[in-house]
Amino acid sequence: MTPAARYALDSAEDIVGYTTYVRLAGALRPEQRVHASDNRQELERARTALDLAASGRRVVVVSSGDPGIFAMASAVLEVLDQEANPAWDAVSLDIVPGLTAAQVVASRVGAPLGHDFCVLSLSDNLKPWALIERRIEYAIAADLVLALYNPGSQARPWQIKRALELLLQLRAPTTPVVLGRDVGRVDETTQIVTLAEVNPEQIDMRTTLIIGSSQTRRFTRADGEAWVYTPRCYPDLTADA
Amino acid sequence: MTPAARYALDSAEDIVGYTTYVRLAGALRPEQRVHASDNRQELERARTALDLAASGRRVVVVSSGDPGIFAMASAVLEVLDQEANPAWDAVSLDIVPGLTAAQVVASRVGAPLGHDFCVLSLSDNLKPWALIERRIEYAIAADLVLALYNPGSQARPWQIKRALELLLQLRAPTTPVVLGRDVGRVDETTQIVTLAEVNPEQIDMRTTLIIGSSQTRRFTRADGEAWVYTPRCYPDLTADA
Repeated sequence: MTPAARYALDSAEDIVGYTTYVRLAGALRPEQRVHASDNRQELERARTALDLAASGRRVVVVSSGDPGIFAMASAVLEVLDQEANPAWDAVSLDIVPGLTAAQVVASRVGAPLGHDFCVLSLSDNLKPWALIERRIEYAIAADLVLALYNPGSQARPWQIKRALELLLQLRAPTTPVVLGRDVGRVDETTQIVTLAEVNPEQIDMRTTLIIGSSQTRRFTRADGEAWVYTPRCYPDLTADA
Repeated sequence: MTPAARYALDSAEDIVGYTTYVRLAGALRPEQRVHASDNRQELERARTALDLAASGRRVVVVSSGDPGIFAMASAVLEVLDQEANPAWDAVSLDIVPGLTAAQVVASRVGAPLGHDFCVLSLSDNLKPWALIERRIEYAIAADLVLALYNPGSQARPWQIKRALELLLQLRAPTTPVVLGRDVGRVDETTQIVTLAEVNPEQIDMRTTLIIGSSQTRRFTRADGEAWVYTPRCYPDLTADA
């Protein structure tokens, strides 16, 4: 957590967020009020936060990772933009950026995001699945490294299977894949496998995947530890004889 | 800067990096040795750092932003992987992630990276320009938000012009674009314009661009300040009558 995020939390009077993320934010003072809610209620949570701030309170909306990446900043701005509520006009707003899961997973194994990459959510709660497939296909055609968020849950087990099918049709089975689970928490795990080895059954909502490009390399150091990186150079394949 | 990065810097005996980034790392103690070098010498810098570490020194290699994103972590791993040097075997390695420019630029104006996005470098020093064009075209076809790094310099002024041409052919001229310059430094500036308004002459190596998708929205609050966000929802366009 950055010092700016810590400061925002420490100086808040009200803390609004998904129960789990509020818990991860660390110790709070007894006079700080917590407004914890279920994960699906982003817009309602944004309204609550704006109402509290409009009433004069100093409010923090908590996300895990970076609030600007698949998280609460969009929800707060959407509510501000779409719902004309003059009471909110006086609320001043700051977005405090943070490390997103893909960066933390990447750092644990090396630098798989060292070259061009994309960040996609596999959740089709808020967008059509056809769009997700199209984005995966174009990302593969562009030979980008892919960071995949929200890869699946018991409620939607087939999305990650379908995404892996697409990837295996178009990318080498030996492509390095990094699986990070519960990133930044005490029970965090990171695993390096090949694309062919990924087991969709092992993947859940708390997993972030990084799928290498054609250039991403895996190597093992003398101590037996494996590392993954995407080199800064991309060869000019058309220049080959 | 995260506390982990601050701690790594504070406890280092040797600091290796591009002169400007070493200066940005803040105050150093007199006994800390600085090995500053020119920007282009990434692999040589990585070798220097590994040699120092192999000699028993505690070394930090400094990048701006996230060392795992277009920065020094890939260079260090590439040297470790490609150059068999048994002296380096005993060196233990940690990558300390940080906020990358796109995240900081995004946070200043709202949440333009709130939905699927890609991060591309426009520098053709290390990859063929044809690949960069292809990646831009696929990113546009996938309707991803684009974060563009290394958009140009006096030495290569035409790349950003060509990228903007491609973008204007395929994306609406009213698409919100965010220009961040000298992000995270004292003279930082952020500007929101439309795709049609971007002036390539204003863009240099120290600029990061965020180009909205078809869904990215700009709005103005009562105080006259503009904000940009990409909503969490993507409409099912095929469902329209």
